[in-house]
Amino acid sequence: MNAEIISIGTELLMGELTDTNASWIAGRLPALGIRLQQVSIIDDDLPKLTEAFRRGMERSDMIFTTGGLGPTQDDLTREAVAAALEETPTVQEDELENLRQWFRNRGQDMPAHNVKQAHLIPSAQFITNRNGTAPGWWAEKDGKHIIIMPGPPGENRAMWQDEIDARLKTLVDSEVTITRNIKTLGLGEASVDEIISEYFGLENPYLGIYSKADGIHLRIIARAMDEESAREMIAPVETAIHERLAPYIWGYDDETPELSVGAALTARGMTLATMESVSGGFLANTITEAPDSNRWYRGGSVAYTADAIIAAGVAPDVLAKHGVVSQPAANAMALAARIATNADFGLGVTGVLGPEEFEGHRPGTIHIAICHGENVHEFPLRTPPRRLVIKRRSCNTALTELRKLITEVAP
Amino acid sequence: MNAEIISIGTELLMGELTDTNASWIAGRLPALGIRLQQVSIIDDDLPKLTEAFRRGMERSDMIFTTGGLGPTQDDLTREAVAAALEETPTVQEDELENLRQWFRNRGQDMPAHNVKQAHLIPSAQFITNRNGTAPGWWAEKDGKHIIIMPGPPGENRAMWQDEIDARLKTLVDSEVTITRNIKTLGLGEASVDEIISEYFGLENPYLGIYSKADGIHLRIIARAMDEESAREMIAPVETAIHERLAPYIWGYDDETPELSVGAALTARGMTLATMESVSGGFLANTITEAPDSNRWYRGGSVAYTADAIIAAGVAPDVLAKHGVVSQPAANAMALAARIATNADFGLGVTGVLGPEEFEGHRPGTIHIAICHGENVHEFPLRTPPRRLVIKRRSCNTALTELRKLITEVAP
Repeated sequence: MNAEIISIGTELLMGELTDTNASWIAGRLPALGIRLQQVSIIDDDLPKLTEAFRRGMERSDMIFTTGGLGPTQDDLTREAVAAALEETPTVQEDELENLRQWFRNRGQDMPAHNVKQAHLIPSAQFITNRNGTAPGWWAEKDGKHIIIMPGPPGENRAMWQDEIDARLKTLVDSEVTITRNIKTLGLGEASVDEIISEYFGLENPYLGIYSKADGIHLRIIARAMDEESAREMIAPVETAIHERLAPYIWGYDDETPELSVGAALTARGMTLATMESVSGGFLANTITEAPDSNRWYRGGSVAYTADAIIAAGVAPDVLAKHGVVSQPAANAMALAARIATNADFGLGVTGVLGPEEFEGHRPGTIHIAICHGENVHEFPLRTPPRRLVIKRRSCNTALTELRKLITEVAP
Repeated sequence: MNAEIISIGTELLMGELTDTNASWIAGRLPALGIRLQQVSIIDDDLPKLTEAFRRGMERSDMIFTTGGLGPTQDDLTREAVAAALEETPTVQEDELENLRQWFRNRGQDMPAHNVKQAHLIPSAQFITNRNGTAPGWWAEKDGKHIIIMPGPPGENRAMWQDEIDARLKTLVDSEVTITRNIKTLGLGEASVDEIISEYFGLENPYLGIYSKADGIHLRIIARAMDEESAREMIAPVETAIHERLAPYIWGYDDETPELSVGAALTARGMTLATMESVSGGFLANTITEAPDSNRWYRGGSVAYTADAIIAAGVAPDVLAKHGVVSQPAANAMALAARIATNADFGLGVTGVLGPEEFEGHRPGTIHIAICHGENVHEFPLRTPPRRLVIKRRSCNTALTELRKLITEVAP
């Protein structure tokens, strides 16, 4: 089956917002055996949208859209689908009652505008939106499918998981595509490329290499008539990658550094505490992305000045002697964080975030320390001097190195 | 002038990479008076690309593309433009020598396949690429312009600044577009829509409404022959929004909650400290996004358990009596954070992040406190029970309420 994605919204064409929905949906289609042909971004303009749906129906089996389902006059996706299919939307009393209930649950009256969101055309069914007021539509006509979803990622992703993914699986019965992601840290893209060079350039299984904030990712994609055959095609490539790159591998598939650390700590009943300056809360915030982090994360300090680092338990003479931006400071921060909360591991991150130099060091100078008991492991690091890169890279390095260390310390 | 953008690359359709080039270019066009009609993402496929260029030439005055200019057989953008314009690319000796020099400067021989990057068609001129080997093309035929750029952001953005922006300014001498963003928090989209409904639906000035993580944004867009006239068209709409929504407005244009707080604190020589549980570091991380935050942010704790909150200076009996998820706990956290670092303002955020209930409260239950001296201001809040929404909303509410309070406390 062929598909296309239409992302809808004037704000996307004004450069106000980067469309992340299309790439999210795109990433889900290969495993369903659906071939994505094209992505278009179109503004909230009825004739243009209608024309886009008409053309989409000619060339694709399936059209996915996000955006334009709000309650205001600007939101025209429903109207455009109705026009393209030459049908008339009418209000659905059941859905209207659901909407009213949604507002009642929040102690509010439904604004009159929202009635719009309870409209439907005869060819379509509603898709429930558990995170917002706008239901989606699944329209089916002449063997073509139009699946319209709201723009907010939290809403469309929940719909996908709740209903869309399952229904797509029943529709598509041809080839299955299976992907396997292997995530490494510590080698550059060119080195990884060289080590496993003979696996690149094949059509099926296909091996891709991607440079990401948390290291070099390898993606094996295999297409076959069923899942098992696809997995069998992946296995030898995966084995080869393992044999040659094992010390650098920190995770697989959807694993993130924080989920990987969390799983390792939970399996050992161990805990973590942090003290960070240069990452400015990015590390703590990333750790608490893991839903079970309250079981293994004892908390942290964002100590953004020398005074704050001292207030958080680091001896003033360490900073006086070596400076805030130094490996001894990182080591003392890791120990102080661990001791203050009686955690098994302590993580300390210091450095220069910029924009100015500090203590004669340029932005992107980073020192990471991980302690277990009194043993401290040191990881100095240098990144490009951009704020987000510094925060991300120091956080990802800290967590992936911690992940490896947990296995070494407690096999 | 009308324009469209074509982002080219199979990796974009596989969902491996999110296209950020299109929104970057999109954001530059309004001030040049260029109207963006559509964005398409197409894979490296010669017939599809050629067809896209043909259709683009029919409906748009200008086509911008990124991607597909590499040296490999997969890279087909040049070939597609040549096919659409029915011209034949030939190698340009000058450019070939530039390429060879580029490699010589790096102590390398030019690989044979890079010759491809020195090809040009008669209707086009090269655009110099100071950050890579692939020059761009500026093709002009029958009054239409096709501007092709490489995919890496570092390369295409440098080209834009070096040559493209200046040349576009000489082409487009008609209209200027000015935008004004007004950012509110505290009312839903439908309510804001209703309050200023008569300004929607106009063509020029155009008023757009956008639901964002930090509230409802209103965007006024005016097109006129010069900047002053455009600003005059914006003024009455902005005044009306002010009169009706003043208590909810917290910022303008590119302002973020943290920049807005930072500017207000800096102007008064005041400082801030934080203690957060439910936002798990999101608050500290957002604050340290402000490049000058080291001047006014004294640091914070991410106190993710009762023990950590107590270790950070909150009296145990407050938590024992009222619970961790309570307004008194938030108040005590704000005070403890302020006192520990001797800051002017203290910010405390507690609540339930989930996924499970805690102390009988459901995820999304939040208590925020802001203290100035001994005066504590309370902001209870309820959000949908999703992790990112809880973190974001509690952070944005804390910062926007702090912003308002700073003005009240120190006018």
